[in-house]
Amino acid sequence: MAQVTLNVQGMSCNHCVNAVEKAVRGAGGQAKVDLPNGKVEVEFDEGKVQLGAIKEAIEDQGYDVV
Amino acid sequence: MAQVTLNVQGMSCNHCVNAVEKAVRGAGGQAKVDLPNGKVEVEFDEGKVQLGAIKEAIEDQGYDVV
Repeated sequence: MAQVTLNVQGMSCNHCVNAVEKAVRGAGGQAKVDLPNGKVEVEFDEGKVQLGAIKEAIEDQGYDVV
Repeated sequence: MAQVTLNVQGMSCNHCVNAVEKAVRGAGGQAKVDLPNGKVEVEFDEGKVQLGAIKEAIEDQGYDVV
């Protein structure tokens, strides 16, 4: 399993936390959001999921991965 | 129909807009949220719905009606 911490801009409330976590699950990973610091810790199986797909899933929800 | 504009604190994103509008509908009214200004314009039938119930529905979502 790979663990990567992403900086994500635009998350403002618990609805956003849920949206990001759900998006990452949909892309095949797991996410833990640190809302005050704008960070998302993602965990995924490198053999099955690409980090790019996870970033894209987050961006599709309207947030910027920086 | 009665129209009242409420000042609501804590709405930060479009998820919040949806949550508030849905809560007001659930209480039997209609709502239009002005996110930048923290205002919620509610419309309801005074004979059927009490303003207090609408305020309560918004507060149940975690926002403050001030």
